[in-house]
Amino acid sequence: MKKEINLSGGIDLDAVVDNSEKRIDGRKADELRSVKFTKNFISSAKGSVLVEMGNTRVICTASVEENVPGWMRFQKVPGGWVTAEYSMLPGATQDRTQREATKGKIGGRTMEIQRLIGRSLRAVVDLKKLGRRQIYLDCDVIQADGGTRTASITGAYVALKLAVDRLMKDGLVKHDPVIEALAAISVGIHKKVSILDLCYLEDSAAEVDANFVMTESGKIIEVQGTAEGAPFSKAELMEMLELAEKGIGELVEMQKAVLG
Amino acid sequence: MKKEINLSGGIDLDAVVDNSEKRIDGRKADELRSVKFTKNFISSAKGSVLVEMGNTRVICTASVEENVPGWMRFQKVPGGWVTAEYSMLPGATQDRTQREATKGKIGGRTMEIQRLIGRSLRAVVDLKKLGRRQIYLDCDVIQADGGTRTASITGAYVALKLAVDRLMKDGLVKHDPVIEALAAISVGIHKKVSILDLCYLEDSAAEVDANFVMTESGKIIEVQGTAEGAPFSKAELMEMLELAEKGIGELVEMQKAVLG
Amino acid sequence: MKKEINLSGGIDLDAVVDNSEKRIDGRKADELRSVKFTKNFISSAKGSVLVEMGNTRVICTASVEENVPGWMRFQKVPGGWVTAEYSMLPGATQDRTQREATKGKIGGRTMEIQRLIGRSLRAVVDLKKLGRRQIYLDCDVIQADGGTRTASITGAYVALKLAVDRLMKDGLVKHDPVIEALAAISVGIHKKVSILDLCYLEDSAAEVDANFVMTESGKIIEVQGTAEGAPFSKAELMEMLELAEKGIGELVEMQKAVLG
Amino acid sequence: MKKEINLSGGIDLDAVVDNSEKRIDGRKADELRSVKFTKNFISSAKGSVLVEMGNTRVICTASVEENVPGWMRFQKVPGGWVTAEYSMLPGATQDRTQREATKGKIGGRTMEIQRLIGRSLRAVVDLKKLGRRQIYLDCDVIQADGGTRTASITGAYVALKLAVDRLMKDGLVKHDPVIEALAAISVGIHKKVSILDLCYLEDSAAEVDANFVMTESGKIIEVQGTAEGAPFSKAELMEMLELAEKGIGELVEMQKAVLG
Amino acid sequence: MKKEINLSGGIDLDAVVDNSEKRIDGRKADELRSVKFTKNFISSAKGSVLVEMGNTRVICTASVEENVPGWMRFQKVPGGWVTAEYSMLPGATQDRTQREATKGKIGGRTMEIQRLIGRSLRAVVDLKKLGRRQIYLDCDVIQADGGTRTASITGAYVALKLAVDRLMKDGLVKHDPVIEALAAISVGIHKKVSILDLCYLEDSAAEVDANFVMTESGKIIEVQGTAEGAPFSKAELMEMLELAEKGIGELVEMQKAVLG
Amino acid sequence: MKKEINLSGGIDLDAVVDNSEKRIDGRKADELRSVKFTKNFISSAKGSVLVEMGNTRVICTASVEENVPGWMRFQKVPGGWVTAEYSMLPGATQDRTQREATKGKIGGRTMEIQRLIGRSLRAVVDLKKLGRRQIYLDCDVIQADGGTRTASITGAYVALKLAVDRLMKDGLVKHDPVIEALAAISVGIHKKVSILDLCYLEDSAAEVDANFVMTESGKIIEVQGTAEGAPFSKAELMEMLELAEKGIGELVEMQKAVLG
Repeated sequence: MKKEINLSGGIDLDAVVDNSEKRIDGRKADELRSVKFTKNFISSAKGSVLVEMGNTRVICTASVEENVPGWMRFQKVPGGWVTAEYSMLPGATQDRTQREATKGKIGGRTMEIQRLIGRSLRAVVDLKKLGRRQIYLDCDVIQADGGTRTASITGAYVALKLAVDRLMKDGLVKHDPVIEALAAISVGIHKKVSILDLCYLEDSAAEVDANFVMTESGKIIEVQGTAEGAPFSKAELMEMLELAEKGIGELVEMQKAVLG
Repeated sequence: MKKEINLSGGIDLDAVVDNSEKRIDGRKADELRSVKFTKNFISSAKGSVLVEMGNTRVICTASVEENVPGWMRFQKVPGGWVTAEYSMLPGATQDRTQREATKGKIGGRTMEIQRLIGRSLRAVVDLKKLGRRQIYLDCDVIQADGGTRTASITGAYVALKLAVDRLMKDGLVKHDPVIEALAAISVGIHKKVSILDLCYLEDSAAEVDANFVMTESGKIIEVQGTAEGAPFSKAELMEMLELAEKGIGELVEMQKAVLG
Repeated sequence: MKKEINLSGGIDLDAVVDNSEKRIDGRKADELRSVKFTKNFISSAKGSVLVEMGNTRVICTASVEENVPGWMRFQKVPGGWVTAEYSMLPGATQDRTQREATKGKIGGRTMEIQRLIGRSLRAVVDLKKLGRRQIYLDCDVIQADGGTRTASITGAYVALKLAVDRLMKDGLVKHDPVIEALAAISVGIHKKVSILDLCYLEDSAAEVDANFVMTESGKIIEVQGTAEGAPFSKAELMEMLELAEKGIGELVEMQKAVLG
Repeated sequence: MKKEINLSGGIDLDAVVDNSEKRIDGRKADELRSVKFTKNFISSAKGSVLVEMGNTRVICTASVEENVPGWMRFQKVPGGWVTAEYSMLPGATQDRTQREATKGKIGGRTMEIQRLIGRSLRAVVDLKKLGRRQIYLDCDVIQADGGTRTASITGAYVALKLAVDRLMKDGLVKHDPVIEALAAISVGIHKKVSILDLCYLEDSAAEVDANFVMTESGKIIEVQGTAEGAPFSKAELMEMLELAEKGIGELVEMQKAVLG
Repeated sequence: MKKEINLSGGIDLDAVVDNSEKRIDGRKADELRSVKFTKNFISSAKGSVLVEMGNTRVICTASVEENVPGWMRFQKVPGGWVTAEYSMLPGATQDRTQREATKGKIGGRTMEIQRLIGRSLRAVVDLKKLGRRQIYLDCDVIQADGGTRTASITGAYVALKLAVDRLMKDGLVKHDPVIEALAAISVGIHKKVSILDLCYLEDSAAEVDANFVMTESGKIIEVQGTAEGAPFSKAELMEMLELAEKGIGELVEMQKAVLG
Repeated sequence: MKKEINLSGGIDLDAVVDNSEKRIDGRKADELRSVKFTKNFISSAKGSVLVEMGNTRVICTASVEENVPGWMRFQKVPGGWVTAEYSMLPGATQDRTQREATKGKIGGRTMEIQRLIGRSLRAVVDLKKLGRRQIYLDCDVIQADGGTRTASITGAYVALKLAVDRLMKDGLVKHDPVIEALAAISVGIHKKVSILDLCYLEDSAAEVDANFVMTESGKIIEVQGTAEGAPFSKAELMEMLELAEKGIGELVEMQKAVLG
């Protein structure tokens, strides 16, 4: 039922999360984990990045196909498309995760996440300017320690931008279809305190779990908040949103730096 | 890509949604569609209701199984479980929807919705008090005109409560596991105005689409907001939340009335 | 292995079916259960009906698609097509029935039934007159107490006729492709007595189980008889056929009344 | 849509079937094709036979498993079980038939046939006498020219009887669980004449297509009649039944001869 | 994990294989089992043969389709194609093998084998001379006692050649696309001795298991050697190759004889 | 049909491979590409390595499960098990490769490769010494330029050895179950010259394609040679084997170095 799996081995979960005041890894409530982007990590892809947020590491690649999905042709929708797929390598979690290809179907959690990634990215792309082509964003989690979906979105933006730059350099796209930058972050409420960028252990213990996708200009693209333990108030939602704004602002700065 | 399908036949979508000021069906911005609950609609189920919100109609049944899911036994999780399944009858939409059983797999949208319904309901059930059993909430949309997921949640609560009452009457459950009532509603932003309980045509035209699940006591269980057309601001999120509070308050009153 | 599931809760099956002479619900051997047709039950479909035979209730919708199946195009078969799908809502039976979409495949019983419904309806439709289009008949059992496949055929005819009338009224079809009415009924042999329109408990206890599909003019479209307990004789087959003729005659009258 | 595929190559179907009076292969209306049973055709199986009816050839094997299906254990049903599977080799038809394993699912026609074979055989087996084991009857059509389902049933009986004899000889079964012999045959109405044991070309042209499964003692186990072209009367059903009785009587004699 | 299944019933495997010196069926180390080809075994197929090597028996049919696979059209590859499918009848092994169609997917072993058969046959066919058509080689094992994949290749060649001869006789193919004959055989190392054409019991006990596909002219098309028990040396590989050359030479002679 | 996909973009394949004498990347015929092992690349796994051979890069992880596969329990096979799974990330090839999880099934090529990896590794592990546990070796290709299956085997050995060392250090395994090191390499014949460690372009152009898995002590575990263009001779097989011996010797040295 839970989303990611413990990287901390034999540590007693309750012991760790109950001594509160400071967070288990010493961070402040509004502090991101260490973030690292390795640009062009995969040379076969048009755009790629290895994004690392603490122990969570995701390979994001952007591949370009010179056609559009069948439903666009069928419904005569103009422009291009951006789609995303998400997967977790079996060894990304301490207890091995079974491969979805082996199970023969994609689980509900994966579907939910890849729909979220695709929807978020499309919100900052002018699909008409993209032309009659499709960009696939593949987010493959090679190590999971909480926040894999938000790291995927943040990384996918970088891979997408790199691929678009390549298309423009190659003269295939005339006007930049990327409207503005976006990034995503998780926020939670633990022992009544709102905390930013939860690692797996914090995520398991939080009463409320929320994910925000926001633009460079501070607008909301997607908000998803779930009461895991107890319902939450309007005020708490606002508090989480403010933490997210701070974190996303920092992430967008780092994206800009790496994109140069 | 879109979620439900036009019930209004040949109407010109843009014409309809562009003459603004008042809503296409004459409602005020903060007004629910007409709501109707037909209790015990299906006599074979432990609890059931036909919920109607305007032209959206959903049969919700609650079935009880005297066992728990495999993963609960395996992980030795105590108590019971509440799970939900959602489906749309092929004839529920003007253009027939293909059956997922025929396709051989459940789509991403269905998965997302049934996970949301189950998660929401579990938030108001004390699973330990339920005992070693499982309640299945089946939400089958027989007619779709927007807001099927929120109508499903609102109806599923009624079916659940009826089934729990039956279990208590039969002496199988001692203490009421239902903590408090909940209901759900959709809200959207259309031409910069926040509107409550969108029908399909409004949903298709809205810039922002949000779903709220809230308790009788006014707390949030789930919030999901998506920028379909343009990113939205913090203030807009608040405005939508307030509309949702109003609508959910009215729905909870109606649920109470029908549950008697 | 059995087809539908007990609606009578804790009743002792053998006790009930062994006190013979009169039927468990007081009917005579050649008496139908109470029958009710609710026309246009689903407003999104071209034609629809809620058919109720005792506690068995089925929503039948007819949807029209302006194209024909791939194999017809490939084999250059002229005219249109009529196809049927059958499903049981999970809550239709006292012990919840697992959804076939969840299992990922359609079971043998469902396939058998939907092939029977489609074949039967096609026997009274002049597919050339229908034109280059396809009518889907969806039969969704919302409550099951025996005879769901025959109720589905009887209801599907009404939905089909309503849809065809609509196509003719809209000028899409010139000449009525429906040749004559049809209906279907189950017959069984229980304690050596032939009985009409079996409810679930009777069906479970019968030695022979047969289904007949016949036309308004008294001809046979389909006959399927199975020895559940003991083989049966030619004379018994005839006796069952006569009961079916009577029941189907009554059903056709009721169909005419509702179609007006 | 049609069941088997033309073995006669370039022959003009309408020409052939319209010159009536005598049948295309010179048989009389009530005459079987040449029938041949090759006992113990497959040495790895407990019981086996190659049954040939004209150009239709089916390998039937009976395999014994010393356990019962899960549902029998779960529902505590006593005794054993008999199950059947049916398949057509790709090369059995002139136009190659795609393998169902390659398609990844079993089609409706195959399901219908294998359910019929299993149900028929179980009607002549006292499952309690069989003991806590299961007999699988596999019917693999290696050449198809009409009547493959009835040839499968007729052959499966022989394979079953051989396997049961082996179980009795080995002391694993004390009392013969086989109640009496059975066989099956197809009958049709073509140009208003009832004909026995249709080959593929006749089957394609027939107005009515029926299959009968009957016991040695002349009782009916299963009757399935379908109006392919036009509805049929009670009298025609009786006429077909009489032809079937004759054919099945002859087949049962041949089965006895080969079983020795 | 093992490939085929014991036909020798209760025999103690270790006892049998440990009394060495001569092989369990009395053959010499370099001796083939008795081989038999029954040409035109299936009259519905363009080419067919029943190939028997000892107790291993395989029906091979060649069907011709007047089109090419989608990927050839898509990639504009000229000429035709040869493809193979392999399957084992459930009753071919003493312990019944579950049908892959029932499981809903083709296993890894089957995939590996059918890819090998297809690849091998294509190596002796000039696909351009074949013209814009596809030959399907279906290899259905009706009895399995080791060496089913090599028997399938040897038989498939015969079926292919018969089908090609028919195409040439019918004037559909001008120049014989078959370059030269090929055959296949298994070789193994058991107790340090290389042996030819292993039956199932030998195959189970062998330390090394290898399959060779070679042409009439003595060239290698495919070699696959696997250390089942212990790694093997270069010298042992050579020794096995020489045994294979001898066996394949004999098989090619028999193929020529049957092809006339 | 081809195995990996061009990393060299617009280069004219025929031009490149036809100017022979020296290899397209300047290597000598018997020269490996540059090889790099990054130990403990994934911290969540018990053992892991990123193996790079030229542009081919594979993440290999070893995960330990404290149970054995169902068939081992069922057949009462003692000891543990080693199994492998292989996958290619979509972005690993210039033309994006569709995800097998999305297709809903694992292709024949993947099955063949993962069976080969597992079988090879098991040949150097004493499964009894491993104890009642299972090691999963996951090989995920993040960049593909030929030789992904052999790189996977070579890397999987390193990951396996690291995991086994950890199990021994933790006292879970007493005696080292790893018998000796192994590595794998591809060899091919191109323009009649045998060449070692083919990159994708060479692999596409080669007449013969072979893969060898050999132990530290120079014995063969697996040999697979396929005539892609033309059959090959015994002498050519020997020549390829000698090249493989050289390459594998070098790889084993590098494995030792990284394992320390």
